[in-house]
Amino acid sequence: MMARHFDELLEELRNKLLEMGELVQAAIRESVRALEGADESAAQSVFRREGDINRLELEIDGIATKLLALEQPVAGDLRFITAAGKINNNLERIGDLAINIAERSESLIQNRHFAVRTDIPRLAELAEPMVHQALEAFVKKDATEARAVLRADDAIDDLRDAVFSDLIRQMKTNSQSVQTCVDLMFAARSLERIADHATNIAEAVVFMVEGVDLRHHHAEISG
Amino acid sequence: MMARHFDELLEELRNKLLEMGELVQAAIRESVRALEGADESAAQSVFRREGDINRLELEIDGIATKLLALEQPVAGDLRFITAAGKINNNLERIGDLAINIAERSESLIQNRHFAVRTDIPRLAELAEPMVHQALEAFVKKDATEARAVLRADDAIDDLRDAVFSDLIRQMKTNSQSVQTCVDLMFAARSLERIADHATNIAEAVVFMVEGVDLRHHHAEISG
Repeated sequence: MMARHFDELLEELRNKLLEMGELVQAAIRESVRALEGADESAAQSVFRREGDINRLELEIDGIATKLLALEQPVAGDLRFITAAGKINNNLERIGDLAINIAERSESLIQNRHFAVRTDIPRLAELAEPMVHQALEAFVKKDATEARAVLRADDAIDDLRDAVFSDLIRQMKTNSQSVQTCVDLMFAARSLERIADHATNIAEAVVFMVEGVDLRHHHAEISG
Repeated sequence: MMARHFDELLEELRNKLLEMGELVQAAIRESVRALEGADESAAQSVFRREGDINRLELEIDGIATKLLALEQPVAGDLRFITAAGKINNNLERIGDLAINIAERSESLIQNRHFAVRTDIPRLAELAEPMVHQALEAFVKKDATEARAVLRADDAIDDLRDAVFSDLIRQMKTNSQSVQTCVDLMFAARSLERIADHATNIAEAVVFMVEGVDLRHHHAEISG
């Protein structure tokens, strides 16, 4: 078989990454639905996606490696390929975190003695769009949009602290709520981590577009 | 300035990665000491390492990118460079997790009303050597040693489950222990994640040595 043309492989890399992005975003939505609605079938949907997400991760890595090995790309193309590799890893981790949330929802369904109210739905409403926006920034090669994702992360951290304090207070007040609150706490932690991975993707986009590495320098860009 | 020779840059990549490995392992040890001994100065040591670890991460990524861009490596060298990039990311994440553990130790020092006994020291005893062994496998290009790291991960998961059940039981029994138990739970979770990152490093080593991608196929290699 002949080696395909460089641009075709680049296009395939981009398309597979977007396909993976769609799968991962669907997994987040389903996992949040499972958590908020104690919805067993939504949890099962998340688990069923794992195989496809893992397969895509390996395919994307394979295409990136092939591009690096056979085509010896330079400058902008090289930055695109290395950014694609980072985005790929972060999307796979987001998929894992959606599975973690779905697992917590199953534990909730098993153990919930009574409803525990939290701001986790609001946390999900903040985290999900960050992943979407980071991938939009990637598609449009838009560093400004990527920077907007980085700024959104502060609101996540504040809300996470509030959710944690609230859950700890409820556990102290009612020992029957402990298992439920622990499940919700780890689900909140997973949502926070999803937002962190969205910022990693956004940083990879800024690097791809501008050649500037923003990691460990959030303070400088958010002022 | 003239471009340095390929082999020199490869050697620099390896040395910086090992330097980062040393820093990260020291951070794990200090964070565990902070946690187990409620040792404020050990926690501070972990926080002080963050800058060096972050700086090394960027330097290593920079060298890897330079090697890919200027030297157009093939086959074994390319696999070494891509493995180095993955090991680098995983070491940086381990450094972050050590910081999380140190932060939990600070919360423990602030809030501990009474001692809570757990198997977390044992979890640390299992997780720490996995990072060391994964890096040894990298240095020696030893896929057999890397596979031993993958097998060690099962014991971690079992112990983590036991630690979690025990902490939930203690929280239910004594509401005053809630904050302490939550801190210990997240510290246990961080140790488990450190072990996960050690397995990621081990997988990268197997890929580097044998060109075989083990991700998402643990079952097949541990039989």
